[in-house]
Order: sequence, then structure tokens, then C-alpha cells
Amino acid sequence: MTLAGAPAPLQRLVAELGRLPGIGEKTALRLAFHILRADAGYARSLAQAIVTATEKVRLCSVCCTLTDADPCSLCADPRRDGSILCVVEGVQDLMAIERSREFRGRYHVLHGVLGPLSGVGPYMLGSMLWRPGGTRGEPPAISEVIVATNPDVEGEATALYLTRLLRPLGARVTRIAQGVPMGGDLEYADPATLARAIQARREL
Amino acid sequence: MTLAGAPAPLQRLVAELGRLPGIGEKTALRLAFHILRADAGYARSLAQAIVTATEKVRLCSVCCTLTDADPCSLCADPRRDGSILCVVEGVQDLMAIERSREFRGRYHVLHGVLGPLSGVGPYMLGSMLWRPGGTRGEPPAISEVIVATNPDVEGEATALYLTRLLRPLGARVTRIAQGVPMGGDLEYADPATLARAIQARREL
Repeated sequence: MTLAGAPAPLQRLVAELGRLPGIGEKTALRLAFHILRADAGYARSLAQAIVTATEKVRLCSVCCTLTDADPCSLCADPRRDGSILCVVEGVQDLMAIERSREFRGRYHVLHGVLGPLSGVGPYMLGSMLWRPGGTRGEPPAISEVIVATNPDVEGEATALYLTRLLRPLGARVTRIAQGVPMGGDLEYADPATLARAIQARREL
Repeated sequence: MTLAGAPAPLQRLVAELGRLPGIGEKTALRLAFHILRADAGYARSLAQAIVTATEKVRLCSVCCTLTDADPCSLCADPRRDGSILCVVEGVQDLMAIERSREFRGRYHVLHGVLGPLSGVGPYMLGSMLWRPGGTRGEPPAISEVIVATNPDVEGEATALYLTRLLRPLGARVTRIAQGVPMGGDLEYADPATLARAIQARREL
């Protein structure tokens, strides 16, 4: 598709929007038209939000989540239990767990999983989790590490690796449960999930 | 969904992105993460493109398309036939027709169609098409007006209205053909389209 007859600033805006994930040229054009049609304040406000976010948001030096204050609000919150650590792949996973309101400990964000294809080796994850002399408390201060990586091949491999790495340090290492999702339908559950659900069945 | 534990600048960016059409909060969050992760130049470049586009792009005073120069490149192009005018609903329609490389006349963009529900009355369209004393040549200079509004209820009503308005002025008024689309499958064509295709059949 060519933007036949479109003025250059519009073409540039469409090109920049088209670099966003999942935004093809047609969608980019639709978004660009919306931005042009909306009140003048919106474009300025959106541009400002983009610049401010990239300038202000960085990684927490303790747990590596995204934050505008260091340490982040989760690490700085004295009501959270610092002896339980939940290890997640990404910031979106942290947010998902926060929404469940079930976990009141602290987090560690790996920003990735072990993946030979993506070139992430064990040393990278390991160094991120326990940096000698880092601001994270030394291992004995933590009684339990919940490994909440995704239940896929890379996530499982990472969980296994972390378990081997952390167990000698004296912390209890646990993994989030796998089984059929709440509200799900057994008929449509995939065989691997059902197998896990049966293996991990619990006494009522 | 709440952005549990997300820093304020990220929340603001997600809110601003979420005001774009078809972008829900989950997609906005994905886009925001992409913007944060991309190289620093991208965010600045995207923000700049948004501001520049809203500042530089305006409506052509002749044909009402979006342009950064007045009159627009289409109206200023001496190789285009100024005696044939193609009336379209929006700038996207103009672009679609330009891509077909079939039309070498000039355009007029209505920026809407007659729609009682959207509050667009005939006087609004009419005044946009022929402004007395405007920069558009007087009606006699135009030999044909092709009405290329969409083949839906509002588009048809607008075409009918424009025909009544323009015919007394001496211009030939035509409508783009309706029928089965190229590469389409008769089996899946809707009844209304097939009915039109049969009514408008042509001698081979």
C-alpha cells in the first residue's frame, strides 16, 4: 500500500506508528487520521506522554521492575513481606499477579527467560537474580522463592534452572500451580493442561 | 484492568494511547512497553511526528483533502484534468482511488456523508462542494462529477442528493459502478451486491 497523495508529515506519522507491534500500515493510517482529527490538545498530550515515559521510567535497582522512583513503590513498601520473593519473566506478569491480590511479598523481574533461540543463557538470568554486593538482601534473608515464569517450554526450563541455582542457598523454591483455569471448560482444555491437572490433583 | 504497580508516567502513556480508536488498555500497555524498550530515538521521533503532523497538515482550500501545502499537490498538478471531479467521503477514499491509477482528474473530499443520525444535513455537504466565490472553478468549468461515496445507505443518499444538486448546474453526474468485486466468489457475495450486479449487467 502506498499513501498516494498523502502529505509528507502524514506519511512520516504513519511510518512511525507502523513501527509499533501489531500496527500495520492500514491501522497506522487510521490512528494517524484520529490524531489529526482529535482536538489539538490530544496530539500534544500524547507526544508529551511518550517523551516523559521514556525519560522518567527506568528499572528498579532492587527488583528490576519498571519504576519512576528508585527503589520502586513495591520494594519500598514496608507492609510487603521481604522474605518471600516472586520471580516473574516480565513486568506484565508482575501486574497480572498484583491484580490477583494474592501475593504480598516482593518481586524479581527477569526480563526474559532461558532461550537458546533468543540467545539468553543461564549466566544472564543468574546474574540478574543474585548480584553479589547488590542492593537485594543476601540469600538467607529470603525464606521462599516462588517461580512464576510462564508454563511453556522456556518458562519451565528457566524454573528448573532457578531451582538448581537457588536450592543450595537455603531458600525454599516453589512453582505456581498448573491445571485447568477457573471458569474454563474441560472439553476445550488442551491435553497437556489436563494431564498436569490430573497429575497435580489434590485431596478434598 | 488496573495497572497495578505501574509507575505514573507509564500509566499516563497507557491512558493516552488507549484513547486511540481500536486500542484497548491491553494493547495500549503492549505499545507502551514497546516504546519504552525501543531505542531512545524512536520515542522522540514518534512524538515529533505526532506534533509535526498536527501542526503542518491542514485541509486544502480547494478540494478539502489533507495537505501540507495549499493548494494540495493534486490540485496544483497541471497534468490532472480539472474538468472531471471525483467526490469522495474521506481522504482514505481518495487514497484508495489514487492507488487504482484509473482516475487522473481532481477530487473533492466531503469529510462525511448525509446522515440524520450523525447530524449531517444536506446544507453542510452542499456548502462544502460549491462555495460561491470559493477558489474552486465555477460549475460550467466542470464537465463531469463522479460521485464515489461508499455503496451503503448514507453514501447512496448522499449520491442522490448531490445528483439533484449538481444536474441543474449542467455537469454530467456519474456514480461508480457497483457489482461483484474482482477476485470475489459469487457463492459468498451478499444478495444485495448480486442483485446490483445483475441489474447493471453489460453486453459483452
